[in-house]
Amino acid sequence: MPKWLKGIGPESDIVISSRIRMARNIESIPFPHYLNEEKSQNIIDKVYTTISSGNLSLKNDFSLIKMKESDVVDRLNYVEKHLISPALARNTLGGAVLINKEETISIMINEEDHIRIQCLLPGLQLDKCLDIGDKIDDLLEENIKYTFDEQLGYLTSCPTNVGTGIRASVMVHLPALSLIGYINGVFHIASKIGLAVRGIYGEGTQYLGNIYQISNQVTLGASEEELVNNLQNVTLQIIQNERTARENLLKTKSIELEDKVFRSYGTLKQARLLSSNEAMQLISDVKLGVNLELIKEVSTEKLNELIAIIQPGYLQKYFKSELTGIERDIKRAQLVRESL
Amino acid sequence: MPKWLKGIGPESDIVISSRIRMARNIESIPFPHYLNEEKSQNIIDKVYTTISSGNLSLKNDFSLIKMKESDVVDRLNYVEKHLISPALARNTLGGAVLINKEETISIMINEEDHIRIQCLLPGLQLDKCLDIGDKIDDLLEENIKYTFDEQLGYLTSCPTNVGTGIRASVMVHLPALSLIGYINGVFHIASKIGLAVRGIYGEGTQYLGNIYQISNQVTLGASEEELVNNLQNVTLQIIQNERTARENLLKTKSIELEDKVFRSYGTLKQARLLSSNEAMQLISDVKLGVNLELIKEVSTEKLNELIAIIQPGYLQKYFKSELTGIERDIKRAQLVRESL
Repeated sequence: MPKWLKGIGPESDIVISSRIRMARNIESIPFPHYLNEEKSQNIIDKVYTTISSGNLSLKNDFSLIKMKESDVVDRLNYVEKHLISPALARNTLGGAVLINKEETISIMINEEDHIRIQCLLPGLQLDKCLDIGDKIDDLLEENIKYTFDEQLGYLTSCPTNVGTGIRASVMVHLPALSLIGYINGVFHIASKIGLAVRGIYGEGTQYLGNIYQISNQVTLGASEEELVNNLQNVTLQIIQNERTARENLLKTKSIELEDKVFRSYGTLKQARLLSSNEAMQLISDVKLGVNLELIKEVSTEKLNELIAIIQPGYLQKYFKSELTGIERDIKRAQLVRESL
Repeated sequence: MPKWLKGIGPESDIVISSRIRMARNIESIPFPHYLNEEKSQNIIDKVYTTISSGNLSLKNDFSLIKMKESDVVDRLNYVEKHLISPALARNTLGGAVLINKEETISIMINEEDHIRIQCLLPGLQLDKCLDIGDKIDDLLEENIKYTFDEQLGYLTSCPTNVGTGIRASVMVHLPALSLIGYINGVFHIASKIGLAVRGIYGEGTQYLGNIYQISNQVTLGASEEELVNNLQNVTLQIIQNERTARENLLKTKSIELEDKVFRSYGTLKQARLLSSNEAMQLISDVKLGVNLELIKEVSTEKLNELIAIIQPGYLQKYFKSELTGIERDIKRAQLVRESL
């Protein structure tokens, strides 16, 4: 279980995790989708050597995983743990990733860009993520010459990443704002100030379990710090709104709220068939109940763990076999019951 | 808790209770709705004296309850326990009932007819009910002259009861036939052979919790024994059909069925708000789960008890106060949780 799910950080009752991702490319080498296997391998070697020979305190913590050597279940599991992107999982020719033991840092190689440094921590810790990301970035730069334009900044495969190449995001659980229907207001304000709101598995995925990823859209025209601070401030504002909404719900709809969270708890504990969508919604309800101290026998850590457990990749890795949809629903319900 | 709910009898997995009710009227006295308080009281005295001075082994077990001396919650509670009819509960001028300790026998006085003898036992025990009813009937006849016509039989206030004056009924739990949609077939066949199907609280009430009351429509042109045997045989047939339906469900939809009954169990154990309609449906699901040995930690008796516990009259009697709808839903959920 990665630290960002298992662990607890600042504002953990609402912010599940913080993430910084930096896109970098190597000078004079075409972007990854133009590369053959050999040239892709050269980049992997270069990054791996740089990390493992540099003066990083964590340097011995990293493992190199090549997509072509991982089976489909493992790759799906890395995606679910947010350690690699679906795009990297598909690059079984030259895609690879370096992951540290705690699974807080992943360095994707030959995704859309040559290098994508990612740092992921539990709770609201964008500054710390940025700090770790910068350290890795500096180390790589000792040995690798990035494509960099004085005017534009870092050049990237997709123009939306040009500039700082940075994407900062927070994964927030907003059940009360969702319940009272104010979540669209949050989306509206976020989009006005250059932030995007996505589901737990990125663009195009549903808003499962009232969990939302909020990230900067703009990478150009502001410093790394400014971009990160902007997201940090908006997140603090959203946290405040969610807390107020929770308090109001408790004041005005106390028994209905209690009923809802306990019913979901009962279903999680007893169901024999659970789809991942339904499970996410039930976990969301129970998380709210735990945060409001209505449900006392379950921890937030346990519930974050459940979010990972119910994913198809995790289930198949756990049960060591590829499973059909109905088999997954049965095994998912079984694992959730055992876990609770 | 009356014995018919608490106890277990033959075929208890499907038949909750059996009931025989005999309608009798006293010669030369107008039917109850024409009587004033004094004349109604005369009838109460006559019946009470006859029962308590006769040679019935149970004669000291009976209590006399007058409707005018009972509050609305108590009367509602008697109706829910099937010891009196809603019509008797409304006759606060001259209505009364004699009930034995076990609550298996009730003798309603000044309902639609002067006297209605009722015997109610757990499981399929129509013969035994008839036997007990006949004993009470014989005893009353020693002291009371019934209106009786050589051609027609016992005369009653409503012509549909003329003849034997007998109504036999069984309360059956048919979740599998309901689930697979064959229940309308059962209704159709029943009506063809002179049987009526009603909800748990009689005519016009909904089919709550897949519980059905099946009773003879006809009281004329056949002997008591024939009427009772007819119902007995049809009930045995329905039991067989329900068992087959349960087996088929277990064979073909095992996991879906298991999921359904356990979800209902989880909701019963955790909900903070429960309407009586929803509670009945959930109890029905759990009963099925218990009968099929999917759920092992709950007994059929406990579930029959729950059916009584969740009724508005019982709740208000238990909590010793008149409760609003939402208060009942809260207290109902609380009692069910404590009970499970």
